Amino acid sequence: MAYTIQQIADAIAARAFGNTALTVERVTEPAEASAGDLALLTNPKFAGGLAQGKARAAMVWPGADWQALGLEAAIESPRGRFGMSGLSALMDPGQHFGKGIHPSAVIDPSAVIGAGVTIGALSVVGPRAKIDDGCTIGPHCVIGADVTLGKGGYLREMVSIGARATVGERVFMQPGVRIASDGFSFVTPEKSGVEEARESLGDQGDIKSQAWARIHSLGSVTIGDDVEIGANTCIDCGTIRDTVIGNGVKLDNLVHIAHNVVIGDNTLLAGQCGIAGSTVIGKNVVMGGQCGVTDNTTVGDNVIAGGATKMMSKVPAGRVMLGSPAVKMETHLEMYKGLRRLPRLISDVAKLQKSISKRGSND
Amino acid sequence: MAYTIQQIADAIAARAFGNTALTVERVTEPAEASAGDLALLTNPKFAGGLAQGKARAAMVWPGADWQALGLEAAIESPRGRFGMSGLSALMDPGQHFGKGIHPSAVIDPSAVIGAGVTIGALSVVGPRAKIDDGCTIGPHCVIGADVTLGKGGYLREMVSIGARATVGERVFMQPGVRIASDGFSFVTPEKSGVEEARESLGDQGDIKSQAWARIHSLGSVTIGDDVEIGANTCIDCGTIRDTVIGNGVKLDNLVHIAHNVVIGDNTLLAGQCGIAGSTVIGKNVVMGGQCGVTDNTTVGDNVIAGGATKMMSKVPAGRVMLGSPAVKMETHLEMYKGLRRLPRLISDVAKLQKSISKRGSND
Amino acid sequence: MAYTIQQIADAIAARAFGNTALTVERVTEPAEASAGDLALLTNPKFAGGLAQGKARAAMVWPGADWQALGLEAAIESPRGRFGMSGLSALMDPGQHFGKGIHPSAVIDPSAVIGAGVTIGALSVVGPRAKIDDGCTIGPHCVIGADVTLGKGGYLREMVSIGARATVGERVFMQPGVRIASDGFSFVTPEKSGVEEARESLGDQGDIKSQAWARIHSLGSVTIGDDVEIGANTCIDCGTIRDTVIGNGVKLDNLVHIAHNVVIGDNTLLAGQCGIAGSTVIGKNVVMGGQCGVTDNTTVGDNVIAGGATKMMSKVPAGRVMLGSPAVKMETHLEMYKGLRRLPRLISDVAKLQKSISKRGSND
Repeated sequence: MAYTIQQIADAIAARAFGNTALTVERVTEPAEASAGDLALLTNPKFAGGLAQGKARAAMVWPGADWQALGLEAAIESPRGRFGMSGLSALMDPGQHFGKGIHPSAVIDPSAVIGAGVTIGALSVVGPRAKIDDGCTIGPHCVIGADVTLGKGGYLREMVSIGARATVGERVFMQPGVRIASDGFSFVTPEKSGVEEARESLGDQGDIKSQAWARIHSLGSVTIGDDVEIGANTCIDCGTIRDTVIGNGVKLDNLVHIAHNVVIGDNTLLAGQCGIAGSTVIGKNVVMGGQCGVTDNTTVGDNVIAGGATKMMSKVPAGRVMLGSPAVKMETHLEMYKGLRRLPRLISDVAKLQKSISKRGSND
Repeated sequence: MAYTIQQIADAIAARAFGNTALTVERVTEPAEASAGDLALLTNPKFAGGLAQGKARAAMVWPGADWQALGLEAAIESPRGRFGMSGLSALMDPGQHFGKGIHPSAVIDPSAVIGAGVTIGALSVVGPRAKIDDGCTIGPHCVIGADVTLGKGGYLREMVSIGARATVGERVFMQPGVRIASDGFSFVTPEKSGVEEARESLGDQGDIKSQAWARIHSLGSVTIGDDVEIGANTCIDCGTIRDTVIGNGVKLDNLVHIAHNVVIGDNTLLAGQCGIAGSTVIGKNVVMGGQCGVTDNTTVGDNVIAGGATKMMSKVPAGRVMLGSPAVKMETHLEMYKGLRRLPRLISDVAKLQKSISKRGSND
Repeated sequence: MAYTIQQIADAIAARAFGNTALTVERVTEPAEASAGDLALLTNPKFAGGLAQGKARAAMVWPGADWQALGLEAAIESPRGRFGMSGLSALMDPGQHFGKGIHPSAVIDPSAVIGAGVTIGALSVVGPRAKIDDGCTIGPHCVIGADVTLGKGGYLREMVSIGARATVGERVFMQPGVRIASDGFSFVTPEKSGVEEARESLGDQGDIKSQAWARIHSLGSVTIGDDVEIGANTCIDCGTIRDTVIGNGVKLDNLVHIAHNVVIGDNTLLAGQCGIAGSTVIGKNVVMGGQCGVTDNTTVGDNVIAGGATKMMSKVPAGRVMLGSPAVKMETHLEMYKGLRRLPRLISDVAKLQKSISKRGSND
């Protein structure tokens, strides 16, 4: 779909310059732009690429001299990457899932479907599920019994939501998301080796082989508004009450959220993070990829954890954490510097020992 | 569904007190209980919550004075969380997948379907597959050719099982489970950089670019009885013989089990664990989340590994392991304590050096 | 399907000995072979197993005395495991997905389907998608709008490919693969805590709670020829241009490839690896399981990383890496050796201090 430079600028509340009636259809990198594209040039270091492409218009960094860059038109965004948010939403060509309810979808007669809802081919909607107005459900989704999906939700293909989950408004789920799988909760008739080892810090005592008894999940999952959930990410049901995902939470691909976990508003977990059972994560937390948090602990508001940080105990609010086991960033850097110096330290100590023992023998 | 306190106590072999004819429909946390709920109060520290809720009955810790707690009826379970197993099984409202074979399911005429089997909407059952009595297969499952699924199995939505897998009785698979994907096994025509590096511990020699040739999986997967497999967990086929999952094994979400792996009975792997190819895991092993085990090694019976433990070589039976690379828990704690003291140690050694050199110059 | 020993030898360009007219139907381990099986005996250490089984023929290691082993016929392969590639391809019994387009598949009339294409039960093919000659698409796949799938592709069940992805020839996707999920890219209106912490190495300053704005993915995914992608692995779309997977790349199960990543030809990533956004991985790289690479960095050609290696910054070509954070293998081994000696070092330094202070007081 084509837009004029002026239309785009208006849509994202930015300023437009030059021939603002020029139309563009796609956003591209400067070097790959054809004449009908809007080059994305929010960082001066890529300005050289313009010459390789054919762009007549670009979205430029604040204060850029668009005429000197040889452009006919330009859009200036106060904060480059933030401008990309509105621009990309406008120019997104979408998934083409169509409109309305596909005839091959299997919808329980007791389900309640709102106005303007799209349900893709071969999707299944269970008994008493409520799909609110303006939702788009891609092909091959399964919406379980008694699920509530809030207004304006968007589910890509192959999403599944188990019974009794409650999902807020404008929630976006990527392909293969699993909501409301059963919690992983097992118990042994007698004290288990793990319990022994935790109590004694290492000794399991005399372990007997025991089978595990399953604890069923009686809770489900509650998800707030404006949440995004990545491909093949799994969120388990709570044991008694629901597992809770706050408003504005963003979960990347292949993330694991165990039973009873609570995640605060606007927290962001990158790919392959895992949060173990009954742990509470605060608001505005950011974790890099492959982080882990142990069970039954808390991570405070505004905590930032670098990639592959493994939080084995409570993390106070506002901390920046690194390492496995996780420590404060400063401590980690100091420990790591020490570790790098360790081979030299060992040889220094050996020299000291020699020097002392020599001196001793000289006494 | 409603049960009397007496019915629940009988079902889980517990003792009931007070007005045991009282009926309850749900299990809740004490503070959130309404009058028709059974409060779960197996730990005295949550007793204060009772006052905030409206529960008339509770499942209480052994020896609790239920009358002093203001309850009309109580169930006492000898071991709190173990009692939850029976209680939660009884009170589980379930997925409401319906009964019988959904007309939209695509079932090969050569498949053999037992008595009392449920097959959900749009599921596919391949040629010669055998689904034994009492199995429930959710919507959107794919059961491959020549698969055997034992009695009383329960597959949530969107489970796939590849050709020739053999699954025991009472196996529970969560949404998105992948059984019998092909093993990840590739070989280069000449010695590869990895082989060179393993032999020389670091030097790859003069590496040539080589394409990888695929080794097809001729084996499949064999799964024992009473196994539970978590959401989006993947178990690959064996190369020649089957990959084997023992009886009573519990795998959490997003676990990766590679080709030829053997997992012993009653072993439990938490979320996002990964077991590399041809490794043998013993019985009654417990691994926390995000553990990894290298290929072609063994982990003995009763081993316990804390979260994010990476086992790079053989682990003897009964060990409690931590860290990356994994060491015995005691060794890990000692090494870690040393690491925390390292910055001070470095300054201590510097002082010693200064003191020695000063003394030397004073000599 | 049965083959004579001679047919197998011809198919894999190996030499055959003895009664080469003997037919076999399956490949098995020596100890489990029945009379109609070909025992796999490419390593002399398993020769003892032959006596336990009933094999009359085997694929043997180079130079093996097949007659002394009691065999009637043998195939000798110059490089054992490489021979397995051809042998396993020949003997693979396959998934039995059938031939042609299943009547339950939902195919958009504008899709272009090549010659000899198989499309399984209940699969969905979107508008303008092009499926080239000889592709096999299993049951329950979703091929999005404007996707191109090259000749001879093989998709197992439950694979999804989002709009506008371009897939090369002979690409093999395991169950649950997610191609072209949206990138995980969010931006705050003002500078975020993460940006502050990166700049100051630890201090987040005065953090305000901010909601995240979504950057839509305008790019898609481009995949080369001869690629294999493991079960439940996810590859996100690029932001402006496509995420790129080179020719001959092999990705194992549960791998996470973020937006804008570029992976060079013939690179192999084992299970649960994760590559963060905009990172470029070279050619012929090999990573063990659970490796991670941070965002916006590069990993050079021929790099080898052991299991659970976390690459937090640029890795030069040809390096062998270990550890978290990753360092050169030699450095890692030296650091780790030091760490193991650390408790003793601490006691050595304490002794030195005592000896010095004692001597000092004796002065």
